[in-house]
Amino acid sequence: MIDEFYMRLALGEAWKYQLLTYPNPAVGAALLDRYGRLIAVAAHEKAGEPHAEINAFCDAFCAICPDEAKIARLRELNASEDIHNFLRKYHDGLFSGCALFVTLEPCASGGKTPACAPLIADLGVRRVVIGCDDPNPKMSGGGEYLRDRGVAVTRGVCEKECAVLLEPFKRWLRRPFILFKWAQRLNGAIDDGKISCDLALDETHRLRSVCDLLVVGGATVRADRPILDARRVNARAPDVQIVSSQSDFDKTIPLFGVPNRSVSIAPKLEVDSGFIFVEGGLGLLNYLADRIDWLLCYESLALSGGSRSIGFDRRLELLHSGYIGDNIKIWSSIAR
Amino acid sequence: MIDEFYMRLALGEAWKYQLLTYPNPAVGAALLDRYGRLIAVAAHEKAGEPHAEINAFCDAFCAICPDEAKIARLRELNASEDIHNFLRKYHDGLFSGCALFVTLEPCASGGKTPACAPLIADLGVRRVVIGCDDPNPKMSGGGEYLRDRGVAVTRGVCEKECAVLLEPFKRWLRRPFILFKWAQRLNGAIDDGKISCDLALDETHRLRSVCDLLVVGGATVRADRPILDARRVNARAPDVQIVSSQSDFDKTIPLFGVPNRSVSIAPKLEVDSGFIFVEGGLGLLNYLADRIDWLLCYESLALSGGSRSIGFDRRLELLHSGYIGDNIKIWSSIAR
Repeated sequence: MIDEFYMRLALGEAWKYQLLTYPNPAVGAALLDRYGRLIAVAAHEKAGEPHAEINAFCDAFCAICPDEAKIARLRELNASEDIHNFLRKYHDGLFSGCALFVTLEPCASGGKTPACAPLIADLGVRRVVIGCDDPNPKMSGGGEYLRDRGVAVTRGVCEKECAVLLEPFKRWLRRPFILFKWAQRLNGAIDDGKISCDLALDETHRLRSVCDLLVVGGATVRADRPILDARRVNARAPDVQIVSSQSDFDKTIPLFGVPNRSVSIAPKLEVDSGFIFVEGGLGLLNYLADRIDWLLCYESLALSGGSRSIGFDRRLELLHSGYIGDNIKIWSSIAR
Repeated sequence: MIDEFYMRLALGEAWKYQLLTYPNPAVGAALLDRYGRLIAVAAHEKAGEPHAEINAFCDAFCAICPDEAKIARLRELNASEDIHNFLRKYHDGLFSGCALFVTLEPCASGGKTPACAPLIADLGVRRVVIGCDDPNPKMSGGGEYLRDRGVAVTRGVCEKECAVLLEPFKRWLRRPFILFKWAQRLNGAIDDGKISCDLALDETHRLRSVCDLLVVGGATVRADRPILDARRVNARAPDVQIVSSQSDFDKTIPLFGVPNRSVSIAPKLEVDSGFIFVEGGLGLLNYLADRIDWLLCYESLALSGGSRSIGFDRRLELLHSGYIGDNIKIWSSIAR
């Protein structure tokens, strides 16, 4: 199979964790052994946890290492640094001659986790295929580092698709990234009861737990009396801004009672950085129309129930779609 | 990677041709070489054309055969039998030791094309992994045939998913299979102008070209004055039944002027076999609610335009979703 095939496997895996890796970029990886046999497809899942390349090495190690005791030891490790050190010490030539496909240039310098490029070279990987160069000057240079260490490096495979995957990251390096999320039925209806499936709700709570600010409209707060926390994934509740021209709210509405979270009320959204997660209705969508970067829709298959649908007079571009549970998950951007 | 991984690649490829293979089942295949390296993912695309396994061998032959002249000769062949004969004669051990993953048991007896199981054995394939057994007694026995020839056979990998892929085929062996298709915007709207992207329209014409009967409602015919042919893919126009209690139609409506097609008008749909393709509106959906097997929705990303949405008070089950061009393509069935 051609390089693009494996890069698309890596891309597909990365999209499953899009934005959940904030403030890191979503990155996917695929690993072939010295015979060209696919031994792992993995992604970076969460900031602070191992990068995509390392998750691919771990998955492959567990699949091909003949020593069960070593696999058990690796599985017990949580810290990225410990996993790096383990792989460097115990790889035993398992990855010698491998080809690694990664949507983003492997990092040359360590951040929260140790740098990937030196480990990749130390493991004896023969070839690294890169989708996009790292736009972050602090982290870039991984490709050159690997080439200097004698690794064959191919750049720009599925470059456009890998660049789309990276867009949120590139934006929040410079300015706020605003995601508008909603759930609807296939008939378009957004009202009338629970719409998302349980896995989609879990993912929504995960997005809340990583964002810098959750934005909701005043009408939604008054009508739905939400909690807007991240209890489904046992994570911290996000700070909330209610966009409303009226600042008087019934403070018994559950979102006000969540500990360790700030709630602000203001008629305008004023943010200058970070990942801004908007769980809005129609009013908020149209108010933020010129500032929204991406939209995320969870769609259930119901063709009945509800009466109101999202009205938005802009052209959307499909970025990616997939499933989560019984819902279809659609990423789009506003054509500009 | 585990068997399920490769079977899912085969499944994903097969879904792209779901129903387009009528009256054959949709089937996908993936092929690994003797080193376990993935060398092809392919599907059966159209009745009369090569089966999925053969398309996988052809793709792999073109990718790995060192003899350019032979590749050019293979590429010139169209008839399944010629391709079978070519592969048997010129494989030169290329597939020796391969592992073949196929969503449906390879056929033991020839139909429109020569049987696959003997060729698979002759090519020296070491292992065949089968999703579902062939429900057609005329064609089954491929697994036993291969085992008798010394091929390692594994059955039942992703069996449930492979069985879903096969559902339409199993139904039209016994009774009519009724597909209801519609196109809508993401806001649910089905009215007001062109909705599907060009590739989705091409696919709709391809479905028309293979179905036994295209069914439409009288109101749609009167309002839209459609042609309902398969001109986008240069194929034969389907026979049409207009479901209408009033039999007087303006015969200058283009669908009546298409040569070599029959048009019937009747208040009820009475069919006893075949692939019945319903391009309907709300009325037809609800009239046929108890008889529809599957639904296919092409969804564009527009959130404005139109006012009417599909109303259907049954629970749908997601079967598969993917893209086609700028549209999302959603297969579902009615939960019963």
